[in-house]
Amino acid sequence: MQTYQAIKKRYSCRKFIKKSIPKDLIEKLVDAGRLAPTARNIQPWEFVVITEEDKLKEIASIVETGRFIGEASCCIAVFCKDTKYYLEDGSAATENILILATDLGLGSCWVAGDKKPYSEQIRDILGVPQEFKLVSLIALGYPAEEKPFLEKRRLNELIHWEKF
Amino acid sequence: MQTYQAIKKRYSCRKFIKKSIPKDLIEKLVDAGRLAPTARNIQPWEFVVITEEDKLKEIASIVETGRFIGEASCCIAVFCKDTKYYLEDGSAATENILILATDLGLGSCWVAGDKKPYSEQIRDILGVPQEFKLVSLIALGYPAEEKPFLEKRRLNELIHWEKF
Repeated sequence: MQTYQAIKKRYSCRKFIKKSIPKDLIEKLVDAGRLAPTARNIQPWEFVVITEEDKLKEIASIVETGRFIGEASCCIAVFCKDTKYYLEDGSAATENILILATDLGLGSCWVAGDKKPYSEQIRDILGVPQEFKLVSLIALGYPAEEKPFLEKRRLNELIHWEKF
Repeated sequence: MQTYQAIKKRYSCRKFIKKSIPKDLIEKLVDAGRLAPTARNIQPWEFVVITEEDKLKEIASIVETGRFIGEASCCIAVFCKDTKYYLEDGSAATENILILATDLGLGSCWVAGDKKPYSEQIRDILGVPQEFKLVSLIALGYPAEEKPFLEKRRLNELIHWEKF
């Protein structure tokens, strides 16, 4: 798929069919995350891929705003070391994964990790050392819903030429 | 360009040739930013496009780590309202712009805005209201340098299956 198409087609998909994602596609997604820009080339990220149903359901039971993770085929948890720009880095990596997932015909949804009461619990469940912070949980699967209509601000409302 | 290609080809480009970017391409880039995921669909972003040479040089003179903005053809300043997830939202929008810029044959570089001593000064120069925070400054132009070799952590070092 062309880049602009993938960017336009991406949406927050919360309903998935029961179909597992081939391992090589998951690796390609994490590869996309790995290639994101990172301040001072620190690359503070680690990616934990969860595909086991029991574990997906356990995470879903903890994450109030991510109950649908329990029905997803995969969840990629993005962690970063606590660097000055970890949140920018981890967010860029997350966005790369979402865009490529769309390109690959997958539905995806970014579930917040940072600033959430459950972030340490998720970290502990996944055996991630305390020096890492949860940035996001990415729910992934083959979509069982179309892109919903969502009111979006129009380009001419938010673009400013030379000054605000 | 295919999405995966654009993700792989993106790099931090800091040298540009003297050639202006057509207005419709700049609009397409901001459109890509506008289509990024945003927590609770708040869309807290505003995009200030700078193409005037004097203003690019003024910004460059303030931004220590972004002196090359003075030689860029364009700089997109990404601002967000101070919401809980403004940094994730603004970072996702920034990454969309970088990926699409690569697709369009442009060089780009993400210059940090958040947590920087110059962020308020840039905001004031651009006439942006105080309620907004600078997330990033994106330098853009036709590249005068190839993608440099940069040591990247390999996939098998950072991917973890089921647990860390």
